[in-house]
Amino acid sequence: MDYDVVQAARVSTLGADAVASDGSIQGLINFLMRDRHGSPFEHNSMTFLIQAPIFVAREWFRHRAGWSYNEESGRYRELKPVFYVPAEDRNLVQVGKAGQYRFEPGTQLQQGIVRDVAREGYRHAWNSYQVMLRAGIAREVARTVLPVGIYTSFFATCNARSLMHFLSLRTADKAALFPSFPQREIEMAAEQMEAHFAEHMPVTHAAYVRNRRVAP
Amino acid sequence: MDYDVVQAARVSTLGADAVASDGSIQGLINFLMRDRHGSPFEHNSMTFLIQAPIFVAREWFRHRAGWSYNEESGRYRELKPVFYVPAEDRNLVQVGKAGQYRFEPGTQLQQGIVRDVAREGYRHAWNSYQVMLRAGIAREVARTVLPVGIYTSFFATCNARSLMHFLSLRTADKAALFPSFPQREIEMAAEQMEAHFAEHMPVTHAAYVRNRRVAP
Amino acid sequence: MDYDVVQAARVSTLGADAVASDGSIQGLINFLMRDRHGSPFEHNSMTFLIQAPIFVAREWFRHRAGWSYNEESGRYRELKPVFYVPAEDRNLVQVGKAGQYRFEPGTQLQQGIVRDVAREGYRHAWNSYQVMLRAGIAREVARTVLPVGIYTSFFATCNARSLMHFLSLRTADKAALFPSFPQREIEMAAEQMEAHFAEHMPVTHAAYVRNRRVAP
Amino acid sequence: MDYDVVQAARVSTLGADAVASDGSIQGLINFLMRDRHGSPFEHNSMTFLIQAPIFVAREWFRHRAGWSYNEESGRYRELKPVFYVPAEDRNLVQVGKAGQYRFEPGTQLQQGIVRDVAREGYRHAWNSYQVMLRAGIAREVARTVLPVGIYTSFFATCNARSLMHFLSLRTADKAALFPSFPQREIEMAAEQMEAHFAEHMPVTHAAYVRNRRVAP
Repeated sequence: MDYDVVQAARVSTLGADAVASDGSIQGLINFLMRDRHGSPFEHNSMTFLIQAPIFVAREWFRHRAGWSYNEESGRYRELKPVFYVPAEDRNLVQVGKAGQYRFEPGTQLQQGIVRDVAREGYRHAWNSYQVMLRAGIAREVARTVLPVGIYTSFFATCNARSLMHFLSLRTADKAALFPSFPQREIEMAAEQMEAHFAEHMPVTHAAYVRNRRVAP
Repeated sequence: MDYDVVQAARVSTLGADAVASDGSIQGLINFLMRDRHGSPFEHNSMTFLIQAPIFVAREWFRHRAGWSYNEESGRYRELKPVFYVPAEDRNLVQVGKAGQYRFEPGTQLQQGIVRDVAREGYRHAWNSYQVMLRAGIAREVARTVLPVGIYTSFFATCNARSLMHFLSLRTADKAALFPSFPQREIEMAAEQMEAHFAEHMPVTHAAYVRNRRVAP
Repeated sequence: MDYDVVQAARVSTLGADAVASDGSIQGLINFLMRDRHGSPFEHNSMTFLIQAPIFVAREWFRHRAGWSYNEESGRYRELKPVFYVPAEDRNLVQVGKAGQYRFEPGTQLQQGIVRDVAREGYRHAWNSYQVMLRAGIAREVARTVLPVGIYTSFFATCNARSLMHFLSLRTADKAALFPSFPQREIEMAAEQMEAHFAEHMPVTHAAYVRNRRVAP
Repeated sequence: MDYDVVQAARVSTLGADAVASDGSIQGLINFLMRDRHGSPFEHNSMTFLIQAPIFVAREWFRHRAGWSYNEESGRYRELKPVFYVPAEDRNLVQVGKAGQYRFEPGTQLQQGIVRDVAREGYRHAWNSYQVMLRAGIAREVARTVLPVGIYTSFFATCNARSLMHFLSLRTADKAALFPSFPQREIEMAAEQMEAHFAEHMPVTHAAYVRNRRVAP
């Protein structure tokens, strides 16, 4: 798929010299990335099946340009009782002011509260949903009590350019030219996306990292 | 604002004859609508402040082309305890198969169940949220127990073309050439949007209705 | 690739019944097309290398949603002397009023004029371009004399949904629910696009035709 | 219009602290720009009537996100004989390699060649066009001989975000964090756009310049 980028760029002979100089495609792709020639990175397509809590999906769907979505419908299907509970390494306590937040682990007591209260909250919400469904209430009405921590599934299709833009906003990398402060849960998903990206388009991914994670 | 449509269309002399024939702008706008010349309807802008449950916002944000959004953040702000409970005239029982659903009111017992179970579910979720916040848990973590029936606020900016596309999918009008089956809650919001649209762009709105609600 | 549509639709169980009823994917795809569920048709990607006159490319690039482009640059490269001259079966004379145009072949005299004047015009323009290039003038300045009938090359990437929208506007089919009046030259390119589409996604293409060429 | 940005940002309380600290809207808008919160800059709309040569319009129309266009049609209308000839201060000679181009004025001889050859080329093309029109050939066919240096008119509607993105690519400012190499002719148009932008949204424009012309 890296080669698709090269093909597209060559139509306009963007960076033909860069290619010639080191006989490889790295030079061209680095040049395109650095000089913000973004369009050659759009002639490819990656489709992912994502499973994530609704609050993560809600942030994801804000990405419009170069993204297509198809999501599991709570109107047409009964949702499944799968809920998000933070793992032990999720920092729970927010310190500092807007724009300068950082997170700290929290005490054992705080960790216990989150686990217990979230689990009990999910259980109660699921029970309310089931009571309504069993009483013959439409799924689209009954679902209003379900929490944003319930999992949803969706197909997401993007291209290398729209994916890099997503990654630049949804991962917090210290080497990034423009720092971002994503919620940890969408960042975990973004890290998995990035691993696939690096595997399938290694040259483009390396150029993105080298360019300090500025999406072209 | 109807006149903006005319101005834009005249650049390309689309339908100059249509204008001439009856000396008014109706002829031109009807012609543009009927022949699917959509771009003249994009040179205008409407901004709305919407307050709606999260499950409505989620459907809304699927509209990408020609829409801009800014939503209240559950990361940066403590949400407010405002929740959606169906009014008495909301049909609660779904009948028929996929693609041919219709809704019926439901019995008094069913109506009572929805009101009571939803209210109790919301109360429990809100309490869980408050317990976590008081224990010092970050807002972005505590919110995972909040239900999709809680209200959110957002600015939405669109133009006449993207609005008509939204309306064609989110209202169920028997005269529409292409029938749609929106969830009643987003349809209620869409009806309010349509009233504003009809007020500010009466000629365009009338042409849209006359064109059997097919967005150009 | 038809199967990608089915996969995406099944995430939301759109039309599960339609699939079940005849044990095939035709039923589901026809249902999605008819009920305007467009998003399942976006999880696929087609890349074309197009060679067309500039006046055709200009109409093409008006299609924004779901299209990506990379075009040969007249700034970075000397263009090639390939020009469009209408073939003998191109109707040359326009009859009727705006919105009701039709074309007729024209007389032999008219056909001769077009061939001769266009060829001579192209020759003169190419010569002017060459004179400026040989005098050391930058390509981006010299190109201003080149006609819109000169050929350009571009990569275009789209998906089934954006392609069907393009086809619905750029082909004139009498069976179409919404008639279009494309310029014949872009229609010739669209017909080739449609042939590839029908080959690679036969079920989706058949559903599109059956739906009277209304893009979902 | 700067205030629209503030309103939109306040829905999500983005940067509420920034506002508080200096009692003005500058702080908030600078914060949004620097931290790449782009969406608050989308809830506004600017419509321009542009007159520019076709080769400039072609570059312009590559901007898809947040832009709407309506252009004069060479199919429906006879174009007017207005053509682009470089002014005396337009540098005509390109020096250096791809990615490092710079332009120099050229000799008086070179300047004379451009003026004379371009004018004569335009005259010849216009004459060919007129000969075909007078022979009854359709406008859409006759126009194929017209050069990309002929002027076209179009309405363009954008918002502050899409305009800043356009400006960052179509102006060459030495203070910019990411240098761009636009063709001078589109840069001249972009400079006029920027003057209007600075007049109507002075705070946003100042924040954009201060942010080294990186569009949020």
